[in-house]
Amino acid sequence: SVNPDLASERQTASFSVEKLTALLDGGTEQTRIRRAVVEAIESDPVFSRENQYFQTQNERYEAAVRKAVHLQKKMHEMGWTENGPEYKYIYRALSGDVAFLLHRVFMRSISVLGSDKQIAKWIPLASQHKLIGSYAQTELGHGTYLQGLETTAVFDTATQEFILNTPKISAMKWWPGDMGRSATHTVVFAQLYIHGKCYGIHPFIVQIRSLQDHSLCPGITAGDIGPKMNFEHIDNGYLLLKNVRIPRENMLSKFCEVRPDGTYVRQGSQKINYFTMTTVRISLIADEVLTPLMKACTIALRYSAVRRQSKLKPGEQEAKILDYQTQQEKLLPQLAAAYAFHFTNDYLQELFNRGYREIQRKNFDMLPELHALSSGFKAVITQHCTAGVEICLRACGGHGYSLLSGLPSLYTKIIASCIYEGENTILLLQTARFLIKCFMAASAGQPVPPSVTYLAAVKHGKCPAKNKLDFLSPDIYTEAYQHVAVRLTSSTAAKLQDLIQSGVKKHDAWNQCTVQLVQAAKAHCHYIAVKNFAETVEKLETKAGIQKIMKHLCDLFALHGIFSNTGAFLHDGYVSAAQMDMVTASYLDLLAVIRKDAVPLVDAFDFTDKSLNSALGSYDGQVYQRLYEWAQRSPTNQMSPAYERYLKPLLHNTLSKL
Amino acid sequence: SVNPDLASERQTASFSVEKLTALLDGGTEQTRIRRAVVEAIESDPVFSRENQYFQTQNERYEAAVRKAVHLQKKMHEMGWTENGPEYKYIYRALSGDVAFLLHRVFMRSISVLGSDKQIAKWIPLASQHKLIGSYAQTELGHGTYLQGLETTAVFDTATQEFILNTPKISAMKWWPGDMGRSATHTVVFAQLYIHGKCYGIHPFIVQIRSLQDHSLCPGITAGDIGPKMNFEHIDNGYLLLKNVRIPRENMLSKFCEVRPDGTYVRQGSQKINYFTMTTVRISLIADEVLTPLMKACTIALRYSAVRRQSKLKPGEQEAKILDYQTQQEKLLPQLAAAYAFHFTNDYLQELFNRGYREIQRKNFDMLPELHALSSGFKAVITQHCTAGVEICLRACGGHGYSLLSGLPSLYTKIIASCIYEGENTILLLQTARFLIKCFMAASAGQPVPPSVTYLAAVKHGKCPAKNKLDFLSPDIYTEAYQHVAVRLTSSTAAKLQDLIQSGVKKHDAWNQCTVQLVQAAKAHCHYIAVKNFAETVEKLETKAGIQKIMKHLCDLFALHGIFSNTGAFLHDGYVSAAQMDMVTASYLDLLAVIRKDAVPLVDAFDFTDKSLNSALGSYDGQVYQRLYEWAQRSPTNQMSPAYERYLKPLLHNTLSKL
Repeated sequence: SVNPDLASERQTASFSVEKLTALLDGGTEQTRIRRAVVEAIESDPVFSRENQYFQTQNERYEAAVRKAVHLQKKMHEMGWTENGPEYKYIYRALSGDVAFLLHRVFMRSISVLGSDKQIAKWIPLASQHKLIGSYAQTELGHGTYLQGLETTAVFDTATQEFILNTPKISAMKWWPGDMGRSATHTVVFAQLYIHGKCYGIHPFIVQIRSLQDHSLCPGITAGDIGPKMNFEHIDNGYLLLKNVRIPRENMLSKFCEVRPDGTYVRQGSQKINYFTMTTVRISLIADEVLTPLMKACTIALRYSAVRRQSKLKPGEQEAKILDYQTQQEKLLPQLAAAYAFHFTNDYLQELFNRGYREIQRKNFDMLPELHALSSGFKAVITQHCTAGVEICLRACGGHGYSLLSGLPSLYTKIIASCIYEGENTILLLQTARFLIKCFMAASAGQPVPPSVTYLAAVKHGKCPAKNKLDFLSPDIYTEAYQHVAVRLTSSTAAKLQDLIQSGVKKHDAWNQCTVQLVQAAKAHCHYIAVKNFAETVEKLETKAGIQKIMKHLCDLFALHGIFSNTGAFLHDGYVSAAQMDMVTASYLDLLAVIRKDAVPLVDAFDFTDKSLNSALGSYDGQVYQRLYEWAQRSPTNQMSPAYERYLKPLLHNTLSKL
Repeated sequence: SVNPDLASERQTASFSVEKLTALLDGGTEQTRIRRAVVEAIESDPVFSRENQYFQTQNERYEAAVRKAVHLQKKMHEMGWTENGPEYKYIYRALSGDVAFLLHRVFMRSISVLGSDKQIAKWIPLASQHKLIGSYAQTELGHGTYLQGLETTAVFDTATQEFILNTPKISAMKWWPGDMGRSATHTVVFAQLYIHGKCYGIHPFIVQIRSLQDHSLCPGITAGDIGPKMNFEHIDNGYLLLKNVRIPRENMLSKFCEVRPDGTYVRQGSQKINYFTMTTVRISLIADEVLTPLMKACTIALRYSAVRRQSKLKPGEQEAKILDYQTQQEKLLPQLAAAYAFHFTNDYLQELFNRGYREIQRKNFDMLPELHALSSGFKAVITQHCTAGVEICLRACGGHGYSLLSGLPSLYTKIIASCIYEGENTILLLQTARFLIKCFMAASAGQPVPPSVTYLAAVKHGKCPAKNKLDFLSPDIYTEAYQHVAVRLTSSTAAKLQDLIQSGVKKHDAWNQCTVQLVQAAKAHCHYIAVKNFAETVEKLETKAGIQKIMKHLCDLFALHGIFSNTGAFLHDGYVSAAQMDMVTASYLDLLAVIRKDAVPLVDAFDFTDKSLNSALGSYDGQVYQRLYEWAQRSPTNQMSPAYERYLKPLLHNTLSKL
């Protein structure tokens, strides 16, 4: 039975939840396929996450390996293939709680970096799981700056082998997933040396464990790096190499080859490599970032509709916490952001697909823009969504703090996305470098990529809004965002030039501008996200209330951004103080409007109870029963030796004389 | 041997680290006592936290109980008493990793709420640990709003007993520490009923477990609420009561008594009760909030001095990440905040002591101000420090994400402080209510408490700063903060009045202003923190460079607050755009100045390696060796059944036919 406080929220939905779900999925057929995958996975007890919050790191790892192995069987049974339409839903259905994710990266790196011969040899072995692969790039002392990697691969012409070493402790490979306990092979990135000369970083296939008994190979020291804030299911590992010899054929050689005599040959364009990083950054947004935020919103908003605390009106019953303006102000902007970034992701996917087609035609022109956008949005979206999940957690008070709410694990997992695949600050500075370059080009009248043409059109006008309703006009707020992005880019470009002209060395000048460059990059991405959301809303069908509610969310996303960064808009007077008060008024009004549809809006994300795995967020809203039932299952309710050992002697005063 | 990159940071300190430590401690004698306590605790292996990051929740609980029992012995051995000067350092030396904290709350509640007779009976029993106490207030369905508690205590005149019940699942006591597995007794808060009439919430001493064999008493269901984001060492519990009978004498009756015939008698003033909450909120700031932030700063800044990544100047070796402006901008404001709030805490302690003296003279005049300040600062400081710890964690990249860095557990623990002892938003609204009341009174020319007299003096001037150096003048920035606090309070008061005058009901009007009321309360606290820091700096001795470096930190704290909230200062033109650019310039300049003393400034916090328990933050900066050594000890490097069970059949292709 559904909690009546939750049921009532659904009766007054202003739109069709089912239609919105289909919109998010990209069509009703996609929804059908997704649900079929979820159903198949969730009905299989091997994939159960029921006891996840009670398990140790070792238990989590073992379960993830069991699931990964079982998944092979399941896919065969269900007729799912890696190229089929179901494939992309499997990972989401498993909530990522599965091993061998790096095996796929291993395969992809061979496909991208290997010669045809290498692909022909290794890919079938990997596909059939005759080996388990990993990807060993990051070192204990080196992450961001690839050129700084210290692992060496010295070519020995006598034996036609590479001799691999991690010469210092800081050179030890550290973090690679699946490597701590599972992998038999890995792609090691190392500095290539031939006849004493360094040729820079290259990838090498190295076997690290026996295929017979899984013992470590000669010269290999490897293990698990220990406990982390989350990812208990993954055996992130370390790897030391001591004079490990591999055949010449194991250097991945699509782009660079070492001939038998030690001649180094570079061939083809490596530009496609940058495209791989772009791919990864875009592909993680949906599964690793948006899904957790959507889950957190679902949990927090359903809970806020059934949790009653304190009174809004004297004499009445305690109010739903969702009816408090402060609670709305915490949660509804996160909900709006989840929708906004869902559409941003669509935009990036489309851009990416277009870029991919161009690249296949050997046209690499779109690469800089793609790199800048994927870097910037990876940073902005992971940052925004991580903060959003934290807000959801805290908005659920004490119960949010229980692991059983599901929120702590969403948080401890999503925060990693701010660090991996490019640390966010580094990425934003990459975007900023692109912006400054394009701004200079645009100022000089040169052509620039489509996403930054706006930088050329610096307008010095004022925001034309006359009353608070004007701020519900997408043109008004989109232009305000654009104005801020231009201002921050141009003022930072000016500061940079001033510093250089005053004699500061270029790299010092750059460093002295980085705090402001980061702001400019964020403003650029924020502007594009708002613009894209507004354009998406305009194209939506007007039926079934979808466009109307999406318009509200778009307005909220935009106005929340202004309300939270008033200084950026007020700074040069583009928005006046009186106008800012209108923004605030419109923003607060919107909270009350969207609050009415809050539960239907999270229902549309269509998470099952099993996928949420939350005592607070289930569809039926029976929060307290579930917390109690789940707590009773906790290992902390087993007999503890603490009583006999410590408490009894204390209480019976039989401790050795105090 | 100290990492040379860290050693060099210490050689150029602009001040005496030892003198600053003494300042923080409140004198060299305090430093001496603190170090003696730390030494005694850390040299005792029972108190070791060495394997903490590898332990399960059950193991953490058992260790905490062991430590709590052992502590009794240790105190006796060392001659430490609860009233001695060492006592306050014990908890910090244990990093809070000890059981029976609620036993002390149990005792305090009896001391404060019990009659002389009750105190005489229970306190000796508790002191001698003939029972273990807990404190059962919060229910599954009720936290913030005490009047909403559902547990009942019905007086039975026939037997002279109270009959206690938790009539619904939402009435179940939930969260009390030490109650899940350890406690034998607890103070239960319940609605008192006599002859069918409800007299509201009252405290009752209830035995829940046998003193003989620790089995649950008749009518009691109790257990552990399961895994949480942190606090694995504490057995937060649940408690169901079914017709549990306790003698009439077990209602704590300092303020209210039930006579044998059922007559309800109220006696004395309960005002002192509010003072207890104030006490708790102030007392948690140092141990639960400032210490974690100071530890996080120590870890992150030492790590930033030894971690080298990428190049600042072409051709040079990789740079210390501390030399990047963006890294400075993440960490140094957190360091400044740690110092700022340390001095805020001194201010609150002094105010509290003064209030306590007044209350002992039956003068309760200071209570509203004390309540407003302790509520507001509890919220502002926990919020600020939680965000600060998260920033420190993320600023250490991947290694920060390892539990071995110590940062994840600091974060997952400190975030709870935003929720317990008053949820932050609720607390800020209490402060705001006080502000609005005082603003109205001040506007009407009535006297108001000292901390809010500034609200009466609304000035409409402009910030007089003429160049960036002017923003290093405390008068300039303190006045700017004051101006913003007044503006936010007065404009929200005006909105509230407008709404009420336009016919909106008072409670609705209040709810519609709460987002802005929270802003006003924060601005008030921020202003007081800045003002207090500036005043503290002025009084410091000018020797040994202490005052100079504290002045820099004060400036940074103030300018970071403006830089991060530019809109609040720009809104009505008090600070102009040109002046805001000066703020930014001065702020960024300060980062480079303070960066030079960053390591000495965290050294002054004087944490031992054992208390930091961090592979990244040790005094010697040998980060990579420690990460590697610690990881090798992880249980994840024990043999796993996963190979034989899953990996071997997969690799040997002996899984049942795929």
